[in-house]
Amino acid sequence: MKTMLSEEKVFKDPVHKYIYVQDETIWDLINAKEFQRLRRIRQLGTSYLTFHGAEHSRFSHSLGVYEITRKIISQFERNEYPDWPYEERLLCLCAALLHDVGHGPFSHSVEKTFGTHHEEWSCRIVLEDTDINRILRRVDPSFPQRVAGVISKTYPNDIVIGLVSSQLDADRMDYLLRDAYFTGVNYGTFDLERILRVVRPYKGHIVVKESGMHAVEDYLMSRYQMYWQVYFHPVTRSAEILLGKILGRAKVLAEEGYVFAFMPYPLQKLMERKLTVEDYFWLDEALMQSVFMQWTAEKDDILADLCRRFLHRILFKYVALEHLDVPFLERIRDHMTLAGKDSAYYMEIDFPSDLPYDVYRPGDADEKLPIMLLDRKEELTEISRRSEIVRSISGIHMGQYHLYYPADFASHESVPEDIKRFLGS
Amino acid sequence: MKTMLSEEKVFKDPVHKYIYVQDETIWDLINAKEFQRLRRIRQLGTSYLTFHGAEHSRFSHSLGVYEITRKIISQFERNEYPDWPYEERLLCLCAALLHDVGHGPFSHSVEKTFGTHHEEWSCRIVLEDTDINRILRRVDPSFPQRVAGVISKTYPNDIVIGLVSSQLDADRMDYLLRDAYFTGVNYGTFDLERILRVVRPYKGHIVVKESGMHAVEDYLMSRYQMYWQVYFHPVTRSAEILLGKILGRAKVLAEEGYVFAFMPYPLQKLMERKLTVEDYFWLDEALMQSVFMQWTAEKDDILADLCRRFLHRILFKYVALEHLDVPFLERIRDHMTLAGKDSAYYMEIDFPSDLPYDVYRPGDADEKLPIMLLDRKEELTEISRRSEIVRSISGIHMGQYHLYYPADFASHESVPEDIKRFLGS
Amino acid sequence: MKTMLSEEKVFKDPVHKYIYVQDETIWDLINAKEFQRLRRIRQLGTSYLTFHGAEHSRFSHSLGVYEITRKIISQFERNEYPDWPYEERLLCLCAALLHDVGHGPFSHSVEKTFGTHHEEWSCRIVLEDTDINRILRRVDPSFPQRVAGVISKTYPNDIVIGLVSSQLDADRMDYLLRDAYFTGVNYGTFDLERILRVVRPYKGHIVVKESGMHAVEDYLMSRYQMYWQVYFHPVTRSAEILLGKILGRAKVLAEEGYVFAFMPYPLQKLMERKLTVEDYFWLDEALMQSVFMQWTAEKDDILADLCRRFLHRILFKYVALEHLDVPFLERIRDHMTLAGKDSAYYMEIDFPSDLPYDVYRPGDADEKLPIMLLDRKEELTEISRRSEIVRSISGIHMGQYHLYYPADFASHESVPEDIKRFLGS
Amino acid sequence: MKTMLSEEKVFKDPVHKYIYVQDETIWDLINAKEFQRLRRIRQLGTSYLTFHGAEHSRFSHSLGVYEITRKIISQFERNEYPDWPYEERLLCLCAALLHDVGHGPFSHSVEKTFGTHHEEWSCRIVLEDTDINRILRRVDPSFPQRVAGVISKTYPNDIVIGLVSSQLDADRMDYLLRDAYFTGVNYGTFDLERILRVVRPYKGHIVVKESGMHAVEDYLMSRYQMYWQVYFHPVTRSAEILLGKILGRAKVLAEEGYVFAFMPYPLQKLMERKLTVEDYFWLDEALMQSVFMQWTAEKDDILADLCRRFLHRILFKYVALEHLDVPFLERIRDHMTLAGKDSAYYMEIDFPSDLPYDVYRPGDADEKLPIMLLDRKEELTEISRRSEIVRSISGIHMGQYHLYYPADFASHESVPEDIKRFLGS
Repeated sequence: MKTMLSEEKVFKDPVHKYIYVQDETIWDLINAKEFQRLRRIRQLGTSYLTFHGAEHSRFSHSLGVYEITRKIISQFERNEYPDWPYEERLLCLCAALLHDVGHGPFSHSVEKTFGTHHEEWSCRIVLEDTDINRILRRVDPSFPQRVAGVISKTYPNDIVIGLVSSQLDADRMDYLLRDAYFTGVNYGTFDLERILRVVRPYKGHIVVKESGMHAVEDYLMSRYQMYWQVYFHPVTRSAEILLGKILGRAKVLAEEGYVFAFMPYPLQKLMERKLTVEDYFWLDEALMQSVFMQWTAEKDDILADLCRRFLHRILFKYVALEHLDVPFLERIRDHMTLAGKDSAYYMEIDFPSDLPYDVYRPGDADEKLPIMLLDRKEELTEISRRSEIVRSISGIHMGQYHLYYPADFASHESVPEDIKRFLGS
Repeated sequence: MKTMLSEEKVFKDPVHKYIYVQDETIWDLINAKEFQRLRRIRQLGTSYLTFHGAEHSRFSHSLGVYEITRKIISQFERNEYPDWPYEERLLCLCAALLHDVGHGPFSHSVEKTFGTHHEEWSCRIVLEDTDINRILRRVDPSFPQRVAGVISKTYPNDIVIGLVSSQLDADRMDYLLRDAYFTGVNYGTFDLERILRVVRPYKGHIVVKESGMHAVEDYLMSRYQMYWQVYFHPVTRSAEILLGKILGRAKVLAEEGYVFAFMPYPLQKLMERKLTVEDYFWLDEALMQSVFMQWTAEKDDILADLCRRFLHRILFKYVALEHLDVPFLERIRDHMTLAGKDSAYYMEIDFPSDLPYDVYRPGDADEKLPIMLLDRKEELTEISRRSEIVRSISGIHMGQYHLYYPADFASHESVPEDIKRFLGS
Repeated sequence: MKTMLSEEKVFKDPVHKYIYVQDETIWDLINAKEFQRLRRIRQLGTSYLTFHGAEHSRFSHSLGVYEITRKIISQFERNEYPDWPYEERLLCLCAALLHDVGHGPFSHSVEKTFGTHHEEWSCRIVLEDTDINRILRRVDPSFPQRVAGVISKTYPNDIVIGLVSSQLDADRMDYLLRDAYFTGVNYGTFDLERILRVVRPYKGHIVVKESGMHAVEDYLMSRYQMYWQVYFHPVTRSAEILLGKILGRAKVLAEEGYVFAFMPYPLQKLMERKLTVEDYFWLDEALMQSVFMQWTAEKDDILADLCRRFLHRILFKYVALEHLDVPFLERIRDHMTLAGKDSAYYMEIDFPSDLPYDVYRPGDADEKLPIMLLDRKEELTEISRRSEIVRSISGIHMGQYHLYYPADFASHESVPEDIKRFLGS
Repeated sequence: MKTMLSEEKVFKDPVHKYIYVQDETIWDLINAKEFQRLRRIRQLGTSYLTFHGAEHSRFSHSLGVYEITRKIISQFERNEYPDWPYEERLLCLCAALLHDVGHGPFSHSVEKTFGTHHEEWSCRIVLEDTDINRILRRVDPSFPQRVAGVISKTYPNDIVIGLVSSQLDADRMDYLLRDAYFTGVNYGTFDLERILRVVRPYKGHIVVKESGMHAVEDYLMSRYQMYWQVYFHPVTRSAEILLGKILGRAKVLAEEGYVFAFMPYPLQKLMERKLTVEDYFWLDEALMQSVFMQWTAEKDDILADLCRRFLHRILFKYVALEHLDVPFLERIRDHMTLAGKDSAYYMEIDFPSDLPYDVYRPGDADEKLPIMLLDRKEELTEISRRSEIVRSISGIHMGQYHLYYPADFASHESVPEDIKRFLGS
């Protein structure tokens, strides 16, 4: 059973102006409590500590991914493309809306520390005993399974997968524009309307009309710029590292049997890796922030100190490493111990390439569906074979090593002059 | 002691592009933990439940007010206006930055329920034992007192007061632009750069050059539109009412000696009206949201139910009342009791004029410094005497009554048909 | 015969991002030489002498009006409104595209001096022996007549007329946004997307859903602001007056039998009021500007001097008149004669209310179709009866007298001190 | 004599919001008739035939270059950089304002056909008997010579030259932003405010702080995109080629002694290469367009036909050539002769690399001052040695061959099928 709303509903959205809802199922999903929970999870984790405008939630991003998908499909239908599977419309829209519903608070750090995975959680929320599951089942008993299939990329239709998850998908298009808008940087802007106009379904794939190549180049350059200017910004990395240290310390303490003065039930379950979907619902960034606030009074000095730093935004300083001089770094580590700090928690050598944002690199192991250009002779070519600029961007190696450390270490009296000089204090 | 930073610092800001910091005092204040706390308090309270982009914090607004003040002063200095008191520059900047530092979580509802006042708290944070006080005292031992004087509008210089708090102040100019940007509405935009160019100090007051009248008209129309489109949006009012009911219920329960399963210390102190500045620091929206989440499991049904509604965004419905038909409203109230709901918590007749946003109305009791135009003959005239459009806006009476109630009441079997029809169910 | 293009065509447009063409007829009309001629006629006449960005042509505006009409109709079709006459789609689009095709160079001044009227010319171009007529006839032999009927507002369907010409029509919506964009002022922006969403056909009229009232208020306030800030800007009026004086002088000279050293054929025909559609085609602003340039060398001193002033932008100065002191103005006129200037050409008392832009005033003789709100009870109310702000704007009387004169007169030795002081020299 | 205006003047500008004038000399220069003439010359020549918004004039661009230069200098002065030569302020501003004052109508084509050069003309207008020269001489008798020195890049101070003419100069920064704004493309936007903040004078050069590298990368990518999307757009090239053919035909006819029915004096002088500064003043795009209009009635068929095509926008079609198959192209040329068209005027093989816009390529013969990064150790490095993305862009070879021809040739009955197929008809 699929029904249309008697009257289109809209959400005011700063990025797309309006988000249009025409299907009852979409409307119900947005109002489901598991989806409303995304309002309490920031799209960019700790980036708000670098870019104070970046407070936007995964709720707004999810609506945006839905809206871009809706626009693409509406263009497919208007043009009556024969290769578009009309019957998959609602599936695409639901998967677009729900693909991030399993994100928890500060996902990247939490996932790294506790081994959870948001995609799995999205599937669980879609498949287990939830309001979202009940709404989806109303469409068709097998519908939740199909939505989960798209989210986990196992659904057997590359057009459906390609819309939600590829090198040129609705997910990325929304987050580049949205993150650019809320951080206030210019880099992430590209001509969305033009890209929407040049994508089309073709022989089972989403492809791009050749005449749209420059628009795609522009989109890929935006990605490249956002990557370096926002997603890998060293101050954001510093906040992320601090967060990781807090979670790591808590995990070690829990394993050692430490009794926390404050430990809410869902976090307890997360640490024991026994989270149910019901528990997961209660895990949000408000809770985590309250926990960090309470933990500033924990008797474990390291945990309390790290939480205080996070809360008051006393982030670690950083210095770029031109090459990895391991003996020198070990000397720093030793001096940190001498200065009374546990270097496992107060020092980090970071190389930002292990983050979940990627430059477009066809051929990589982990690659997503590549971008294919369709020329007038109806031939397909992967874009980097046609565009020198894409080839150039794809070949650029990623990242630089940075050393992170507390400012109070760099100025500590026991630290030798050469290290102080190196740390720039 | 006032010192300039060796190198200007900047914050990327979506509204002003960049925020420039040149003074060491300003830099230190921004990094003070009491100021960083503003990151955890939303500028628009519950508006994010209506406009999903409106997640921006009071931290970003406070930086914006500072930046506009800095730009105005820098224009005064560039033009070497003789009536500008050069020695008040840092005072104005600090007061602009700190005027909202006393805002707590969901200020409007909390203040109304518990009788606190953010302006008083701003002064206490400036004057009592805080990092902010220590930073201000470094300028001069009497400096905190002067900053507090500007915030409480008792400082004896109308130019200083006028910049931070008047009908055309840096505070309003920033929030109109910022709230318009993050909600995504167009209404709040006006030509800031032009207004900055036409304001000037003149015989102890901030006045506007006559040639800037149309720019000010545009600004006042923006205010009018934002007022009705955003600040008094009935869905936002609905969320605000629900929040007020939660806090009111909690207060009543506390007074009745109810033992809360979850009651963090700072909230306890708030309810007992014994908050210290130290306690106040811990009160933020993350904490409040965690509390509401925990309270969904309280044994008091009303409190638990209201919290569940807030968390899952099951807001009250509303219907506009063309006039106040008291007997009819009493009948509704009676039927609510019959339907098993306590109308003190599930029904509200709202008239949004009692909110802290105001249309410009010279002559009102509570009026702020009016906007004075300076003509070529160096004569001053209050703007509404010159501008018909301002006169028109000022004369517009405010608001409309709305009745708020739960959707499940409107569809309850015990409710008579005429009431159901009236409630539109 | 109506056919769709095999592939949608687009124009990049700064205001609407893209303009979409789907009908072969529209595509052919845009490429007709009579339509391409609009590229050589500025949308805002002499406003570029005040706002240097305002160089945009009537070509771009006409495309914009077409695009807004297309969007409205596409929304009507998507919502399957029963009151929408589906068969009128192409008629509306063609009339929207062509309604301004009869504009000549510097229309307002030329029309005033020579008694032409652009609407009549639009109809002649549609009906007489032109490429445009041939393209329209291909649709249906009676089609040109129907298009002309819409342009001259005699077509018997208010929905069709209302889209192209009413208080809330595609024409105004495009020009407010476009003129705001190219001049760079903020005033003209309003939420076009929202307005498009709330208009609908209803019982033979275009009406606005009640919930869109605030968006319409915003649009009317934009009009009010653009009116004063751009369309009636005194510097633009000054350029317009100078232009009128040039044309007036040329007309008088021609009537007196003066032999012009340079007088291109189409201009000759205009002055003799014997223009054919074929002649009209050659009249554009490039020609007029070349004529003014050549005329700087005419032996008639007044004509040569006025042209030199226009070309080098040596505009008349102005001073606002608080009231019409006729004897004083006559004294100025006498002194102008004494100073050797013909006051018929060097002095003007201007009251800008006689311009073709109007504030929304239901009830005026010349009024266009008013804006009707449709409420939930399916009742219609004229907007100013519901909106206090619209009522306020409608009641505002228009304009102020200004005296225009050359700067060299104001500083002429023969002018008495009191007049000099009044003229501010 | 240098004096400041008693009150700052402003121009409303869509790109920079406002343009501020503080110096009397600048104000007078803007009002000089030779500068006002730039209003009648489009910034982008024939691009308005591709992008209908691109009607903006060289007047607005020149103001923009001035404004960016003013902002940079004001930042230098605010930061009190010791390497900034304070006494060169007015020289920089005047040179920025006037560097394009010698541009004639449709410069690129006219210069190519008649061997003029706009830079030389800028210098002549500055140095010969003009209002501009008189205004400059009021500053100092040698001032015109110094301004001309900066324009011709012979002035012995690289900081002054670098501001007005280098790989990162005020000229390019303005035109990228301005052309992007008026065409409506997104590609040309970059973070101007950030770039202004990171440039500084250093040991006789303009350099960029290392931390600004990403902003400069973004600027260079914008250039790359604008290059391909706007400046080399094949439709614009087509209009440019048509224009070149018209001018070329007129030149040949003039050399053959053909008597033109219409030939205004300044154009005559241009063709005889005897233009004086006084004549040059009268050459503008209004004149050229009137000439083309008159020439549609010339008895020379080729000239009349080409002018008709230009005026009615019946541009040549084009097809991309993957490689230069000379015999095949010769066959096309032969068939064009057979079809009765002179291939010298109706066919062109175009390779757009010979246009005056360039991608940044340090090392090229004609290179401008390169972009140098200044790191913390006060060492300078050319940017492409630090940025892989710049290196990539610099290495990209330019352009592609296109064949241009009239649509009516491609469909001519005498043309063989294989050529028709190749031409896509």
